[in-house]
Amino acid sequence: MQERALIASIRHMAGHGPSALRVSIGDDCAVWRPGTGREIIVTTDQLAEGVHYPAANAPARLLGARLVGRGLSDIAAMGGEPRLAFLNVAWPTALPERWCLDFLRGFAAETRRWKTAWAGGDVSSISGPAVASITVIGEVPAGQALLRSGARPGDLLYVSGRLGAAALRNMRRITPRLALGQALRGRATACMDLSDGLSTDLHHLCKESGVGAVVEAPRIPVASTLDRALNWGEDYELLFTARPNTRIPTRLADVTITCIGRCTRRASGVRIEDADGRCGPLEPRGWQHLG
Amino acid sequence: MQERALIASIRHMAGHGPSALRVSIGDDCAVWRPGTGREIIVTTDQLAEGVHYPAANAPARLLGARLVGRGLSDIAAMGGEPRLAFLNVAWPTALPERWCLDFLRGFAAETRRWKTAWAGGDVSSISGPAVASITVIGEVPAGQALLRSGARPGDLLYVSGRLGAAALRNMRRITPRLALGQALRGRATACMDLSDGLSTDLHHLCKESGVGAVVEAPRIPVASTLDRALNWGEDYELLFTARPNTRIPTRLADVTITCIGRCTRRASGVRIEDADGRCGPLEPRGWQHLG
Repeated sequence: MQERALIASIRHMAGHGPSALRVSIGDDCAVWRPGTGREIIVTTDQLAEGVHYPAANAPARLLGARLVGRGLSDIAAMGGEPRLAFLNVAWPTALPERWCLDFLRGFAAETRRWKTAWAGGDVSSISGPAVASITVIGEVPAGQALLRSGARPGDLLYVSGRLGAAALRNMRRITPRLALGQALRGRATACMDLSDGLSTDLHHLCKESGVGAVVEAPRIPVASTLDRALNWGEDYELLFTARPNTRIPTRLADVTITCIGRCTRRASGVRIEDADGRCGPLEPRGWQHLG
Repeated sequence: MQERALIASIRHMAGHGPSALRVSIGDDCAVWRPGTGREIIVTTDQLAEGVHYPAANAPARLLGARLVGRGLSDIAAMGGEPRLAFLNVAWPTALPERWCLDFLRGFAAETRRWKTAWAGGDVSSISGPAVASITVIGEVPAGQALLRSGARPGDLLYVSGRLGAAALRNMRRITPRLALGQALRGRATACMDLSDGLSTDLHHLCKESGVGAVVEAPRIPVASTLDRALNWGEDYELLFTARPNTRIPTRLADVTITCIGRCTRRASGVRIEDADGRCGPLEPRGWQHLG
């Protein structure tokens, strides 16, 4: 699809936003006024042909929606409310117009669904595989962002939903746990989203918090197999910790919550305990990313 | 270069920022507290191999710096102060480690130079040409952002620096006009940066403001030829307007300022007048982008 036609389509689909968004596409920057006493949270993500999806028969509309979902899942993990989304695409001119428009429609629909203004972006025509890049900006009451670094030894370890479901149907629509993340403000001591697989993500959380952890395998809410629940990734559920005396309901913001273990001192490492009480190291076997 | 090694390098180089940046690389989002009474401004840009620079012998360190410069130039055009930068790269594994590290070093040094915190990003290993994507977040006193839409008939038209210089040495380091943009707050009625060439960018400004314009060719501060000054692009100077009774010094924030014409009623279109007073339409012959 030609760059100029792409730009015209994006201008048509994007830019509708809340009144706090004073300026969007058409100026050098988007201009937005955060609420009083708020902190800004920012995340970026990418979707590359041949890496995150196969080159042939990739469902464009779903991919556009998934890129938004992945960005919003990071906002959810901080307990934030999404506000603005920006889309950069570097696409080969040979990509069919229908594919491009479907991707953009999926992106636009998903931002609307989660009340996030599509506030800008950039278009480049390249000669190689398609790359799309999202930035999402959200806000959170100052000092209340859920960080990865707040867990302490003795905290209990929880996950939302069921894990390993993505392995059953990899190209699912993502439901970012925004309402859950917001409900966890003031309750969770640490939180992150499960994008790389529980085994890898738990290591990240423990490292940032300076703790160890023990996961009780029989308690993990498994959608298919334990191996997939631990290592598959792409679940976009929340992994979080809370003090043992904090009441965490088994259902919160319409999602099932399961206690799967506890935090320990750092020196104990990250371990998994089977039904017979045998304990071994939980190796990080999921994906590796920047953060 | 391997993804894991890239991530380690980025973690090492990035994340150092002002205390208002509470959290950066290592968590799901960066967390940042804007100043009281401030609006947030956001811009994104891309740099693609084979589009913005040739595949062979591309000077990596300069490219990393230029990507920052292009983002900051948009912040300058709004009269803003840059705060956070995010870098997404989709790079082929075959890119030499030295090239990647030089690009990252150029990016890191340029963010430091302009007191902007490199606060996060994403890394993907792809099979095609390199694509890098930047998001810059800045702030501006609420209501004082310099928009493209504020020009009125009768306003005078100004540019900073000399135009067409990029044509002489295309792969220059970019000096974003941040101090100038900030000095223009409360003085300029509209402002944008010259990235696509004066002829094209003036059309953008006129369209957003709903005005026409007349440029007096002999007044344009030409670095090489008039054609290059009008159509080459990549100058990253500021184009702005001010009421005729607003005093605009010929030198502001260490940059030469030149009055090159005036705004007219929309119906008159965008025109150029030669030394003999002959007037014709100024066609947009520069680049076309999203905004």
